[in-house]
Amino acid sequence: MLQCGVIGATGYAGSVLVSLLSAHPNVEISYVASHSYVGKRFSDIYPSLKGACDLVLEEEQVEEASKRCSVLFLALPHGLASNKVTQEVLNRCIIIDLGADYRLCDSSVYESWYKTEHGSKELLTQSVYGLCELHRSEIEQSNLIANPGCYTTCSILTLAPLLAEKLVDPTSLIIDSASGVSGAGRSEKIDSLFCECNESYKAYGVTNHRHTPEIEQELSLIHGSALMVQFTPHLVPMNRGILSTCYANLKAAVTEKDIEAAYVKHYGSEPCIRLMGSSLPETRFVRGTNTCAIGWKVDARTKRVIAIGAIDNLIKGAAGQAVQNMNIRCNFEETLGLPLNVSNPL
Amino acid sequence: MLQCGVIGATGYAGSVLVSLLSAHPNVEISYVASHSYVGKRFSDIYPSLKGACDLVLEEEQVEEASKRCSVLFLALPHGLASNKVTQEVLNRCIIIDLGADYRLCDSSVYESWYKTEHGSKELLTQSVYGLCELHRSEIEQSNLIANPGCYTTCSILTLAPLLAEKLVDPTSLIIDSASGVSGAGRSEKIDSLFCECNESYKAYGVTNHRHTPEIEQELSLIHGSALMVQFTPHLVPMNRGILSTCYANLKAAVTEKDIEAAYVKHYGSEPCIRLMGSSLPETRFVRGTNTCAIGWKVDARTKRVIAIGAIDNLIKGAAGQAVQNMNIRCNFEETLGLPLNVSNPL
Amino acid sequence: MLQCGVIGATGYAGSVLVSLLSAHPNVEISYVASHSYVGKRFSDIYPSLKGACDLVLEEEQVEEASKRCSVLFLALPHGLASNKVTQEVLNRCIIIDLGADYRLCDSSVYESWYKTEHGSKELLTQSVYGLCELHRSEIEQSNLIANPGCYTTCSILTLAPLLAEKLVDPTSLIIDSASGVSGAGRSEKIDSLFCECNESYKAYGVTNHRHTPEIEQELSLIHGSALMVQFTPHLVPMNRGILSTCYANLKAAVTEKDIEAAYVKHYGSEPCIRLMGSSLPETRFVRGTNTCAIGWKVDARTKRVIAIGAIDNLIKGAAGQAVQNMNIRCNFEETLGLPLNVSNPL
Amino acid sequence: MLQCGVIGATGYAGSVLVSLLSAHPNVEISYVASHSYVGKRFSDIYPSLKGACDLVLEEEQVEEASKRCSVLFLALPHGLASNKVTQEVLNRCIIIDLGADYRLCDSSVYESWYKTEHGSKELLTQSVYGLCELHRSEIEQSNLIANPGCYTTCSILTLAPLLAEKLVDPTSLIIDSASGVSGAGRSEKIDSLFCECNESYKAYGVTNHRHTPEIEQELSLIHGSALMVQFTPHLVPMNRGILSTCYANLKAAVTEKDIEAAYVKHYGSEPCIRLMGSSLPETRFVRGTNTCAIGWKVDARTKRVIAIGAIDNLIKGAAGQAVQNMNIRCNFEETLGLPLNVSNPL
Repeated sequence: MLQCGVIGATGYAGSVLVSLLSAHPNVEISYVASHSYVGKRFSDIYPSLKGACDLVLEEEQVEEASKRCSVLFLALPHGLASNKVTQEVLNRCIIIDLGADYRLCDSSVYESWYKTEHGSKELLTQSVYGLCELHRSEIEQSNLIANPGCYTTCSILTLAPLLAEKLVDPTSLIIDSASGVSGAGRSEKIDSLFCECNESYKAYGVTNHRHTPEIEQELSLIHGSALMVQFTPHLVPMNRGILSTCYANLKAAVTEKDIEAAYVKHYGSEPCIRLMGSSLPETRFVRGTNTCAIGWKVDARTKRVIAIGAIDNLIKGAAGQAVQNMNIRCNFEETLGLPLNVSNPL
Repeated sequence: MLQCGVIGATGYAGSVLVSLLSAHPNVEISYVASHSYVGKRFSDIYPSLKGACDLVLEEEQVEEASKRCSVLFLALPHGLASNKVTQEVLNRCIIIDLGADYRLCDSSVYESWYKTEHGSKELLTQSVYGLCELHRSEIEQSNLIANPGCYTTCSILTLAPLLAEKLVDPTSLIIDSASGVSGAGRSEKIDSLFCECNESYKAYGVTNHRHTPEIEQELSLIHGSALMVQFTPHLVPMNRGILSTCYANLKAAVTEKDIEAAYVKHYGSEPCIRLMGSSLPETRFVRGTNTCAIGWKVDARTKRVIAIGAIDNLIKGAAGQAVQNMNIRCNFEETLGLPLNVSNPL
Repeated sequence: MLQCGVIGATGYAGSVLVSLLSAHPNVEISYVASHSYVGKRFSDIYPSLKGACDLVLEEEQVEEASKRCSVLFLALPHGLASNKVTQEVLNRCIIIDLGADYRLCDSSVYESWYKTEHGSKELLTQSVYGLCELHRSEIEQSNLIANPGCYTTCSILTLAPLLAEKLVDPTSLIIDSASGVSGAGRSEKIDSLFCECNESYKAYGVTNHRHTPEIEQELSLIHGSALMVQFTPHLVPMNRGILSTCYANLKAAVTEKDIEAAYVKHYGSEPCIRLMGSSLPETRFVRGTNTCAIGWKVDARTKRVIAIGAIDNLIKGAAGQAVQNMNIRCNFEETLGLPLNVSNPL
Repeated sequence: MLQCGVIGATGYAGSVLVSLLSAHPNVEISYVASHSYVGKRFSDIYPSLKGACDLVLEEEQVEEASKRCSVLFLALPHGLASNKVTQEVLNRCIIIDLGADYRLCDSSVYESWYKTEHGSKELLTQSVYGLCELHRSEIEQSNLIANPGCYTTCSILTLAPLLAEKLVDPTSLIIDSASGVSGAGRSEKIDSLFCECNESYKAYGVTNHRHTPEIEQELSLIHGSALMVQFTPHLVPMNRGILSTCYANLKAAVTEKDIEAAYVKHYGSEPCIRLMGSSLPETRFVRGTNTCAIGWKVDARTKRVIAIGAIDNLIKGAAGQAVQNMNIRCNFEETLGLPLNVSNPL
């Protein structure tokens, strides 16, 4: 059994990760750590996981944990991981970081969007952007896997085939996304109170959300040169789910068939992607799963394609993809321990 | 007291209208009609309006009603009103139609988007598009007022100043909207069941929603020549509210100041519009009110403006605007009987 | 115009109160105070009330406020008011306290349930329990009105006629209540986060909720001797509303007619109570209103009556009843400025 | 592999059952039938189960299905199963009926509560009430298993140990329950529309809900003589979950220890029951699982026990318990294919 640890285990992403790992057939959780609940049992904080993980929460010590675990997952606010991971840690342990610190190759981009210094720039050359469907072969070989953001996973997967096949104008990309409230994490903020979110819908982070440079980095890579996207997140009164509605101007003569062919070519055999064509995804279709559902419509009137992706922000957008990355890195079956279907209504 | 009637009184828009009219100081409701509940008291269907309106629901008879009312509101599915309204009706009664039949000047556009023949094309020259802030002087004089759609009210109001002042590229307009479930009406459809909508978010009507030609008609008028918009509605698990997130490419040299000046010029003294600048609206801020809240951000990086409008779909997007139209037409104070503020959380 | 002040204006109850007072025809708000937002405009915290109240929030100073206001409303956590109100304050100003400090006649009961010393026991003889329908004549004369709790208002109103008319066994009273999340207030608590409340239902405060002694005090008074109730609150994933499902064993030979007669006798002409008989209330029927809706069923099989009351916890359960108390105390029409109907769905 | 069939596969309980069976290691689904969607693929109706079950839906034919399946699940409205099941069917096939037809031993009780004639009274002697924890040994041997109702499962499990150990007064039982909206099924009813349920809470079926006689039958059996319960269900705006708050007067001298001992004695080794003591269950703790969580508080003041149970109405309250019954009947491990934990927030 592979020994695993989770630092930041009592946040929403961390606890979903503990849940997935506790049910994973090849894995044993030997270490869970939490900033706020040291000394309590994990299942005291999450009673619904009693029996699944009853370990006592320890201090968040990357150094120590890396000695006890073969794979160590970090689910920390940005700025922490880059000050805790070292070359020594990476020499003995695989780090899968669910935070933002190792996602951007260019530390100056990181520093400009996150307004903080990067604590270990020298490790960035070793880090792999852990969007499994796009970087599988690199993930297989790296000890520092930067698990992507939730909006970014959904948006990049939705747009990648269109850019890879040169079907759309790269200057026209608009990504209008919406997320459930668990994306804001389990912290005591007025803005996350039930009565502040319920029965309302709003945009936030307009023009300056930190997932923007991640999306641009990956889509630029696919496109072959630098591009920019307009990314606007919204908040939906539901627990889980992200939907990205992506707009792009079609290049001349591109047809609906070309669009479909691109998706089938890139994702036709991907186990965690469900192509829905024109029937369009809804977030409930992927709730609780590691599946990304993608649909699309061509507007012959306006010469645009509207491509829509849906994920569970805590699973394919965080903990599930982290497990998928572990599976790839450790040569397990890629979907081992990952739910792909859900029974609605859930 | 002005005698008013409501046909389609037990639908969501109709019942909100009855509620507003019953509290309006210059108005008496003398006629309420319903397709499904003839013979029952209105307050048997809506117990929360007991005491406000206890009239018995009658058959839906436009002819008859027009003899008993000075203002007659129609809240019917599309295709019905145009077969019930006649010149004789208009000669004796002001019709405010909450449906789609008289909104589009060009009956061929209507017939192509609604897939049905228009029943009274000859009356279209008399109809006024009842978006109060844009057509006030025409509304004052017309006996056939076509109350706009919910998405259209929100989207047109949000974009109008930008087009009127020639600040944005008219080929670049993308309107990404989201609505609460009451927009789907009070009809027995699987898709509107609690468990089918709750805890999910989806796009629908992508590329072909019927509010598209309405938005295009009005924005083209403002722009001075025909333009097209990309309009995508989404469904949010909440009762009420519409948010339109509108994207447009800025013309060269347009600044944040220019944008603000345009909104202030057009809406600075509008009683039903609240300009929020960069603090951005949320649907809860206008829940239960006839207010349209509008905010905006300029993205210096991408040279776009993102303008965001919010309304209550059943009030400013339907029943409230209908009352506002009546107020204008009947020379009442424009906001008489209309709530403009709300106490959150509601 | 009556000069009014609100201390604790930015909490949920306080802000609803500001909203109601700002629309009240006989009142001017001259003072608003907040613990957390001194120096900000009220409408910066509640943008949906822009134009309704744009006053700058001041420090919470009862002494100072009592000099500037004829009526001063306190919406503070328990334990604060009793240390701020003095005889001098009461000599020049009417205090309507939305908190718990002056509700219980017996300070030892207060101290045992609230685990804190009472700061001004000497004032308790002057305080009136402001449940309007039960204590109207005392309210007319008091300068210290203790506005009842939300659960208590709903539960006492629902059970009072049954006890007053001796129809039920006073040892058998079970009150099973449920509230929307706004009852927990606008404070940064993990338990009030959207994702902790949404899609769940739970009991809390079982056997020891602090509204128990309030209910017992008032029902004992009506009954004529001390009684106990079993009170169990639950949390419902909605913003507003309380429903109390009350169980009582019928005394021998009591019929459905007797029950109805009791309700009609006590509440038949109450403007803020809506008797629904066997059609039963739902919380949405009273959302946003100062109405208490009450229905009941007699179970011939089990010889019990199940009486069910519904209120809006922030209005009849807090701010609305406070205004109703002010109206009574100041000889205004009792429902002035108070919404009694609502248009569903809201 | 055991061949299974599901009749009524596209309702909520039926589809959850299909989902559980499709992931069950010992089972193959060979037949799915639906009243409304004959000829469509199951996954066309439930896109989130694409890949899990893509069978074509057939006509609902019990006779035919019983020839092709070893276990046949019926998820039909009451009154249908009793007209379709015959002795021949039972001779060749195990029937697990999720409906009400075979739950009540006494057909006259059935006919009086359900207002319809029972179609196969002669089979009632063969049927077993499939509440697994109470009737395990009978279930092992029966070919006609009547899967209990949702409210009944939760309420009976919560109260059974208290009655079995004679700790409470059997004349004092009050069960106040609340359910998510999926309990109302997937049918086109105004009352189940999103906007009719959302942001509200109500009681329904007061004094006459059909789960009452089921609860009474089973608790009477445990108690040793006939007893009655007061059962009141409520509707909560959430998809899934039932909470039963059960009140009972303690017999003299019964202590908190006695209560705990009773629960431990009866359920201490039950794999699908989680005892929570005084920390009390919430419905989210069991969402998506086959677990029944039970907690309790003794009120020393009032001499009552308040025992609270929580289940997922579609799993332990329907489809999951059906699978548990199959596991017991077929000598599989009892929890095979059944989720027992969940990762909140879900």
